[in-house]
Amino acid sequence: MKMITGVQPSGTVEISQILEQELYGCPIKMNGTVHTIRDMGEFSFVVLRKREGLVQTVFTKGETEFDRKDLHEGTAVEIEGTAQREDRAPNGFEVRAASVRILSQPAAQMPIAVGKWKLKETLETKLDLRPVSLRNIRERAIFRIQEGIIRGFRDFLFQQGFTEIHTPKIVAAGAEGGSNVFKLEYFKKKAFLAQSPQTYKQMMIPVYDRVFETGPVFRAEKHSTKRHINEYMSMDFEMGFIDSFEDIMAMEAGMLQYVMKLLSECYAREIKILGVTLPDAGNIPAVRFDVAKQEVAEHYHRTIRNPYDLEPEEEELISKLYKEKTGSEFVFVTHYPSKKRPFYAMDDPEDKTFTLSFDLLFKGIEITTGGQRIHDYHEQIEKMKERGMDPAEFESYLMAHKHGMPPHGGLGIGLERLTMKLLDKDNIREATMFPRDINRLEP
Amino acid sequence: MKMITGVQPSGTVEISQILEQELYGCPIKMNGTVHTIRDMGEFSFVVLRKREGLVQTVFTKGETEFDRKDLHEGTAVEIEGTAQREDRAPNGFEVRAASVRILSQPAAQMPIAVGKWKLKETLETKLDLRPVSLRNIRERAIFRIQEGIIRGFRDFLFQQGFTEIHTPKIVAAGAEGGSNVFKLEYFKKKAFLAQSPQTYKQMMIPVYDRVFETGPVFRAEKHSTKRHINEYMSMDFEMGFIDSFEDIMAMEAGMLQYVMKLLSECYAREIKILGVTLPDAGNIPAVRFDVAKQEVAEHYHRTIRNPYDLEPEEEELISKLYKEKTGSEFVFVTHYPSKKRPFYAMDDPEDKTFTLSFDLLFKGIEITTGGQRIHDYHEQIEKMKERGMDPAEFESYLMAHKHGMPPHGGLGIGLERLTMKLLDKDNIREATMFPRDINRLEP
Repeated sequence: MKMITGVQPSGTVEISQILEQELYGCPIKMNGTVHTIRDMGEFSFVVLRKREGLVQTVFTKGETEFDRKDLHEGTAVEIEGTAQREDRAPNGFEVRAASVRILSQPAAQMPIAVGKWKLKETLETKLDLRPVSLRNIRERAIFRIQEGIIRGFRDFLFQQGFTEIHTPKIVAAGAEGGSNVFKLEYFKKKAFLAQSPQTYKQMMIPVYDRVFETGPVFRAEKHSTKRHINEYMSMDFEMGFIDSFEDIMAMEAGMLQYVMKLLSECYAREIKILGVTLPDAGNIPAVRFDVAKQEVAEHYHRTIRNPYDLEPEEEELISKLYKEKTGSEFVFVTHYPSKKRPFYAMDDPEDKTFTLSFDLLFKGIEITTGGQRIHDYHEQIEKMKERGMDPAEFESYLMAHKHGMPPHGGLGIGLERLTMKLLDKDNIREATMFPRDINRLEP
Repeated sequence: MKMITGVQPSGTVEISQILEQELYGCPIKMNGTVHTIRDMGEFSFVVLRKREGLVQTVFTKGETEFDRKDLHEGTAVEIEGTAQREDRAPNGFEVRAASVRILSQPAAQMPIAVGKWKLKETLETKLDLRPVSLRNIRERAIFRIQEGIIRGFRDFLFQQGFTEIHTPKIVAAGAEGGSNVFKLEYFKKKAFLAQSPQTYKQMMIPVYDRVFETGPVFRAEKHSTKRHINEYMSMDFEMGFIDSFEDIMAMEAGMLQYVMKLLSECYAREIKILGVTLPDAGNIPAVRFDVAKQEVAEHYHRTIRNPYDLEPEEEELISKLYKEKTGSEFVFVTHYPSKKRPFYAMDDPEDKTFTLSFDLLFKGIEITTGGQRIHDYHEQIEKMKERGMDPAEFESYLMAHKHGMPPHGGLGIGLERLTMKLLDKDNIREATMFPRDINRLEP
């Protein structure tokens, strides 16, 4: 019997330890994966890839015990040596290797030059080779930024008194009531993959007042565009006791401010690698749907073709116009027409053709849909019937309304889409680790 | 155009504000949902349910402007009044109501007495009525504890240099290679729901060295037991550059210590409500599979029927024996037989009939499976072939090995199972917000 007592100090050092503790001149041990090798005759620059960045190591004939034949791109090594300040190296230091221990070897040459600063391959090739292409420093930085976003989302909401929930992804009915839902064989029963945690998060409002979930959602949309994928990470929250749906927008603005601050403070390395300019979420304009539509038609001399929805070009132009007017890359568009919003959306009591709802546009694209929900049981039943839905199919959901729900609302944010726009990528697949679309199911 | 600038100070107060700022005697505004009502003649005790707990309010005829007919269990209200110290009330204060504003009304009487301290209904009834039964104070506390576990898991791993990843749940092949996998119609292609993020998290090792994921996994197991559900939350991590699989157990022990500390400090309210005694994860014994099996056979006079796997009774007895020997509620069982571990498990070089793997037992039940993985491409191909698997079906996965992977390993922890045992529940459904099993697809 052994006793396991927790994480023990490691014999190897990380980049941040060398920098913070200034371990220059001291003997150190460091592990990493060979990222690139540059042979210079009597010595070789062997750059190691570590989770915190790159480390230049120097292997010198006569000084380093090693066999050059053992080193390949992809070899995992543990090096003993000495760190020295070196302005021209990444992070301002290099490691002079005294000896090297081989931990593992690749079986073949890299299919692409992951050690280059930018991959020149097409998106399709990068996706086909995901387990390799993500080893590129810029590619992997994308998903560190994505981590910062979801981490900031959660941390901010914890601070605001939200409770994290986990709701089922195998469901008996599609939340949005429509098509676009994946069907499943579930022990001879009919089942679907959840398009959204909508009905579940509403059910949890009378339990915790404020809830959030970060999890996958599934949309069986057949079209393939640069801004759609069929499985994505949705960041959802729902909050009770709201005075108006503006409370939801205010919470989102606060969350975005928190995320941008977290990114600038804790993800500065990746922000620099990708050359990102973080947007200011301090003052986000909010404009009515009908007003924005009219303004864009006048300002850009367009004809309004569909008064009930925004065309992608209109979203772009609203963003452009409000960027010019206010400097904000974000703009809330409010009061969407009732006929384009789902059955749970609350109509505006002042004009029932509109709803107390909003989208958040960011750099020309919708990244959030949200709004106030119906909390009154009879009102919800009536709206379902108007839409030809059978309330009996929503018994569990309506149980929440029947036994009392405070006024509430919430939103859903597409993590990959927000990442894409934040990093000025033009295809959502660039910001999805392993994307799923009508043509792609692997890797 | 309005400007949205972030979260504004609310006009209403929360329980913690009253306690921290000692707002006794001051006029306050507070919202909440009517949890219970006790009529006393000239006055009524109206207990409000808020996210932080219960608040006793006092409605007095002549002093409070209200119509008693407006108040029901489930009514959402906003009360103006004064907080007064009152030792007999929850949190040591009550609110004398001056006036009340009705925010929403239920449409029917509660089907069960959610205001009682303990629900007396059967598990089946509680699950059927989940949107209502979770409003019970003890029921909802379960999922706050669950939040603390997953939050602690993530925060600890962030501190340890792990990167959070999100891998697809719709996959082309089952990770564990076996049956028990849900089939899906995916645009006329054959697809499955992921049983585990195993292959994906391994692919990410050469990218970030250390990764974790918290997300749903799906197992189409046909049997219905108290410790199985068909969709659950898996907390997975994978770490590179390990010296041995003990590094993984040490990381798990550290994580558990962190979680218990977080629960005791930040979830003290729920710990108290549920009367939980948090286990000590400071010293976890680790014992070989074959040794533990033999010990239990001798100590409890049992015959070993299957030398390759642990029966549920054996898991219970190993836990019991090591609780007696060491005082620990946790015990690592190491070196599982190779034939019971998946194709990616690394065999023990000293005896290839065993693997460098482990389970963590907690109070008699397995809550974690983990171990070192094969990192060498040729070794992995060979093991697949031995098992009759076709390496060509795992091309993306093997791409990681082919182009270099450091020695690595990891584990998966079932969130609901850990919650169940921590809270001494005897059915995993008690610790699952909306469970899915062979009979249950709703709510």
